[in-house]
Amino acid sequence: MLAEIIAVGSELLTPFRQDTNSLFLTEQLNGLGVTVTFKTIVGDRRAHLVQAVSIALGRTDIVCVMGGLGPTEDDLTREAVGEALGVRVRRNGDLLAALYKRFAERRSSMPGNNSKQADVIDGAEVLPNANGTAPGQWLDIVVGKHRKLVILLPGPPSELKPLFIAECLPRLKTALPPRHIARRVLKMAMLPESEVDARLAPIYTRFNDVETTILAHVGEVQLHLQCAKTILEVAQARVQELASRVEEEMEDDIFSSNGESLEQIVLYYLEIRGATVALAESCTGGMVAQRLTSVAGSSRSFLGGAVVYSDALKTEFADVPEELIEEKGAVSREVAEALAHGIRRRTQATLGVGITGIAGPTGGSDTKPVGLVYIALDDGKEISVCEKNFRGDRERVRWLATQQALDMIRRKFM
Amino acid sequence: MLAEIIAVGSELLTPFRQDTNSLFLTEQLNGLGVTVTFKTIVGDRRAHLVQAVSIALGRTDIVCVMGGLGPTEDDLTREAVGEALGVRVRRNGDLLAALYKRFAERRSSMPGNNSKQADVIDGAEVLPNANGTAPGQWLDIVVGKHRKLVILLPGPPSELKPLFIAECLPRLKTALPPRHIARRVLKMAMLPESEVDARLAPIYTRFNDVETTILAHVGEVQLHLQCAKTILEVAQARVQELASRVEEEMEDDIFSSNGESLEQIVLYYLEIRGATVALAESCTGGMVAQRLTSVAGSSRSFLGGAVVYSDALKTEFADVPEELIEEKGAVSREVAEALAHGIRRRTQATLGVGITGIAGPTGGSDTKPVGLVYIALDDGKEISVCEKNFRGDRERVRWLATQQALDMIRRKFM
Repeated sequence: MLAEIIAVGSELLTPFRQDTNSLFLTEQLNGLGVTVTFKTIVGDRRAHLVQAVSIALGRTDIVCVMGGLGPTEDDLTREAVGEALGVRVRRNGDLLAALYKRFAERRSSMPGNNSKQADVIDGAEVLPNANGTAPGQWLDIVVGKHRKLVILLPGPPSELKPLFIAECLPRLKTALPPRHIARRVLKMAMLPESEVDARLAPIYTRFNDVETTILAHVGEVQLHLQCAKTILEVAQARVQELASRVEEEMEDDIFSSNGESLEQIVLYYLEIRGATVALAESCTGGMVAQRLTSVAGSSRSFLGGAVVYSDALKTEFADVPEELIEEKGAVSREVAEALAHGIRRRTQATLGVGITGIAGPTGGSDTKPVGLVYIALDDGKEISVCEKNFRGDRERVRWLATQQALDMIRRKFM
Repeated sequence: MLAEIIAVGSELLTPFRQDTNSLFLTEQLNGLGVTVTFKTIVGDRRAHLVQAVSIALGRTDIVCVMGGLGPTEDDLTREAVGEALGVRVRRNGDLLAALYKRFAERRSSMPGNNSKQADVIDGAEVLPNANGTAPGQWLDIVVGKHRKLVILLPGPPSELKPLFIAECLPRLKTALPPRHIARRVLKMAMLPESEVDARLAPIYTRFNDVETTILAHVGEVQLHLQCAKTILEVAQARVQELASRVEEEMEDDIFSSNGESLEQIVLYYLEIRGATVALAESCTGGMVAQRLTSVAGSSRSFLGGAVVYSDALKTEFADVPEELIEEKGAVSREVAEALAHGIRRRTQATLGVGITGIAGPTGGSDTKPVGLVYIALDDGKEISVCEKNFRGDRERVRWLATQQALDMIRRKFM
């Protein structure tokens, strides 16, 4: 089964806005065994829209049109799809009454334009929109000799997503051959994509029925596994089998087997061990703290810490001796150790982390180049330090330092 | 002049990857007076590609095809564009020699596949790619009775952008009617889009020749001004005139008149006043520090601070009296004041900022709901506090708190 996604809206043809709904829709459609073969982005011009829909009807089985269902003159999707299909669009009395009611409940009168949102393409089912005034529409229709599904969806993601899940997913499951999908996402930090692929290709290529995608992000490689079968348990078993083989090969290098983020995993381990962590961050400037505190409930294991950007604050908040900074330099193994040790002692945390480095673009030297970062971890018994020479711009160096720091905390519990 | 952008690559039809080049290309094309009317995303299938290019040639003047220029079997853009135009594709001896040379210089032998990258569409100019092995191609060609420009560009943004600037921009300027564009971006923090539009619409609607776009982000409204004239100075004068009117109306609410970020502006003001800042962050968990330190050179004005997530650290690092936290609660006006005061005293900074709030999704109560945030600023003479009830999820509440904090620092210097 092939699908085309059409995103409607002149704002999507500016340098400022981009369609993101199609990623969600693609994931949903793939999960039903449907392949997306084209995406088209078209402005609010009727002739363009009619053309885009006609072309899509000629080359795919399922056409999803997103946007252009609002109440303004620019909202032309209903009329254009009707024209492309050669069927009429009529105002629906029940929908119109519901619109009036909705406005009355908010004690405001409905602008005349809004009645447009009660227009329904002949033969379409109306898909209620719980989060907006524009309902979706579902057409199961024969064009030429071919059965086509045409789905009209509202543009705002907060309306499109719940509407698709509630109204389209069940209809698609009925309309399409039965198919069950099992999925897993395994994640690894701080390994090169090429190494991961070299180690895993001999394994995953033996699983022809499991689709494997390797995605490389900065400091993180993700392995997406997906298997489709007519029986769900069979699909799950195949994904589980491949995931187990991958876990055997990569062992501790895998930090997450179910899609969790590195910060979620770190906080999970801290919590089950009843441990706490505190940070003294220099070059990362609070980014590790920010990542940990982005997770709700992080206060159970994350105490806080210090952003010791100036040398004076390294002494003030983490008791790093002034002489040590003078002797070894602020970016040094010894200062990283002192930061980890000092912040642990000051906060009474189970683990103390110290990070110091040169994020760039300036500040580097021959002996201490841009990208040099020291990350130290004090667990009360010993202090381990990791020295890294990260490549890339300021943002990349800082991000890699946070990945490395979080991964070091995680490995404490392996 | 109308353009269509075609992004090629099956990975762009998965849930994992998205075309982003088209935002850059659209900005560049708009700057030359070209309107983008369609974007098409198509996979690595020759028939689909030929169809997409043929349709684009039929409806626009300029067709930009991005991606599919690599050395693998999946890279079909050259052949497909040739087929759509009805012209041959031939291997270019000079390009082939250059490819061999490139590999020889790296002391590696060229895989046979790579010779594909020396294929050139008949009539095309080769566009050198300084950052990769796949050159671009430029065709100025008559299709039917219409002149068409067809541009082939490599997919990776790090190759596409410099190649477009160096090779395509000058050619497009020669090929298209002369046109000069002046642009300005004005930014405002913590104002609702509706208020900005209500105050500015009476002004910008009087400038018919300046295109005005209002973009709303979380906690930030941007006003993009653009004017195209045959004489650059005239365009600049019109944009300047509108920008001045806008600045008269919005006064201090505008934090940036040339596109700078809020953190850049804050650091700029701190530096020219010879002032420094330190932070005691609770609910924002280091995010303000992370934003400030994302700017290179921030160490000149940002000393650092403390992430005082636990109550104990509020006392340890910012000398907030335990009894005050007990009496008023960690999220209170008084604790915010004490944080700002304490961190300023401990770090000897010119300005101390204290932030405490409830980011959610849990932890709220009737009297102190999720979204309640106190932000205090101590300048050594007085402490000002701002109480906010932000709406939205954890990420949004935290982000808005950082915007508010940065904007308060900025306003100190107005």
